[in-house]
Amino acid sequence: MKERVLTGDRVTGKLHLGHYVGSLKNRVALQQQYETYILLADVQALTTHFDKPNLIRSHLREVALDYLAVGIDPNRATIFVQSMIPEIAELTVLFSMFVTVNALRHNPTIKSESKNSGLDDMYYGFLGYPVSQTADIAFCKATIVPVGDDQLPHLEQSRKIVRRFNELYKPVLAEPRALISEMPRLVGTDGKGKMSKSLGNAVALDSSYEEIALKIKRARTDPTRIHKNDPGHPEVCPIYAYHQAFRPDGAPEIREGCEKGTMGCSACKGQIALALEQLIEPMRERRSYYAARPDIVDDILISGTRRARNIAQDTMGEVREAMSLNYFD
Amino acid sequence: MKERVLTGDRVTGKLHLGHYVGSLKNRVALQQQYETYILLADVQALTTHFDKPNLIRSHLREVALDYLAVGIDPNRATIFVQSMIPEIAELTVLFSMFVTVNALRHNPTIKSESKNSGLDDMYYGFLGYPVSQTADIAFCKATIVPVGDDQLPHLEQSRKIVRRFNELYKPVLAEPRALISEMPRLVGTDGKGKMSKSLGNAVALDSSYEEIALKIKRARTDPTRIHKNDPGHPEVCPIYAYHQAFRPDGAPEIREGCEKGTMGCSACKGQIALALEQLIEPMRERRSYYAARPDIVDDILISGTRRARNIAQDTMGEVREAMSLNYFD
Repeated sequence: MKERVLTGDRVTGKLHLGHYVGSLKNRVALQQQYETYILLADVQALTTHFDKPNLIRSHLREVALDYLAVGIDPNRATIFVQSMIPEIAELTVLFSMFVTVNALRHNPTIKSESKNSGLDDMYYGFLGYPVSQTADIAFCKATIVPVGDDQLPHLEQSRKIVRRFNELYKPVLAEPRALISEMPRLVGTDGKGKMSKSLGNAVALDSSYEEIALKIKRARTDPTRIHKNDPGHPEVCPIYAYHQAFRPDGAPEIREGCEKGTMGCSACKGQIALALEQLIEPMRERRSYYAARPDIVDDILISGTRRARNIAQDTMGEVREAMSLNYFD
Repeated sequence: MKERVLTGDRVTGKLHLGHYVGSLKNRVALQQQYETYILLADVQALTTHFDKPNLIRSHLREVALDYLAVGIDPNRATIFVQSMIPEIAELTVLFSMFVTVNALRHNPTIKSESKNSGLDDMYYGFLGYPVSQTADIAFCKATIVPVGDDQLPHLEQSRKIVRRFNELYKPVLAEPRALISEMPRLVGTDGKGKMSKSLGNAVALDSSYEEIALKIKRARTDPTRIHKNDPGHPEVCPIYAYHQAFRPDGAPEIREGCEKGTMGCSACKGQIALALEQLIEPMRERRSYYAARPDIVDDILISGTRRARNIAQDTMGEVREAMSLNYFD
């Protein structure tokens, strides 16, 4: 029997190259090997977007299209909608009984948010994010969760909650382990931080070639390189990071040309724009196939959610039995 | 159409005279006038008893027997099990997105618990008690919630959460109002505080006459009254409080006899023990009828829960629609 992977995204915006490098590419590979469950996290999107439910609604299908566009195969992977699995809410409530506020405050995301705006002004649901994530993983008994380095403490917390449940009641839940992604976060086109839609430094996965070329043209490069023949510093240049990420074989040549001042930024940018177009062009094609067939997309989400729900109901049955809440069995 | 009442108890122990005076008696009257929903709050029992699930399991049926014993009529009132209504968990999670930690800390119960043991050591689920209570009320659109004075701030918080939901999305939830119980809390037989099973100062609703008489015999009275003819102070005596609560017509005579020193404690206690026996005897009878027929009790709970669940599903449908989470409708 194949091991089960749980992964997913909050549906707060269309996906971009940062997501592709950080997780989507990996998922396309994982689905060959594992039973892959991909969560459209609309409830968790509400933790920050509770006053914009229509935005979540429209992004749900956009993110689903992004998945299909990058090559998630609905015959291999199960894409499902979080809010349509009530058992996730039930597990969240049950886990919350034995997780202290203190434990939640030690979660790095909660900690930094707490530093920014204070614990008191935090929304209760946001504070419970780690509990809710544990329910996402636990309901389908996923044993593998692909994460970046920065998310390891989150997964450790989920492992603790699952272990505590199993100790308190009965070992019916699976303790998940991290599958660490080797790829560091992709830098944005402004070179200032990670690629992020809200910072306007992202290349969306549905970009046209013109949009790619424009984003790349406007991207920041090494600011100390004024003239074409000045020696550059590739390690500070987002364009060089893209060469490393998207055409690693060609990257050494780029580095050399940049450092020696024999390759200008414009040519360097032209090469990466073409490489990105080669990556994105088949995505655009698959995307427009599905975008023109909304019924197929709905069928994929509905049947995926049904599949996830069946597992959720089985797990909840075991959880009720473990907790002696199965009064009438 | 009749208005709907929501009430209930955490299933952490058998009920006693304090519950009878404070709420059960009132419910027996309310069921004549309102559509009455009575919650067996097993999930909320977990907030303090998560490590004793078997205790909750056994108390669930005991509390149901207490309800039937005092005269809750399953043909009029709907008795249902909280953990079997997943929509309550779903609403709890959704409400938690827009309720701040600060608002929860202002809840009197949370505030006093927070003072005792600190916010950090509080369990996340306990902190969310007011959110969970709001979900209990909101799922069935109850417009009336019987409460004691001390619970008014809780209900005010629920009203706020419901109003906020209705403002943010669409006015689909009903704003509940308090029905204030006139009866103050019943003092325990030790005269020290409210009647409470854990303090050992309670008279259980399934007591035999011998148990009633013994509890009353051992009850504390006015400690300044040493000899029978000493003038007593009925206002400090729990026995006098019971006369007021359970045989109000006879209370003035008791007061006079006590204050004048013409009635001894033993005779006074004998009278109240008899009055309590008159109250409890028919409860014992109904209780043993149902206790001997566990299938009937299960049927009452199962069909009540089914009735509540149908309402919950309708409400959740409206909630999903209001929040634009009804993706495939």
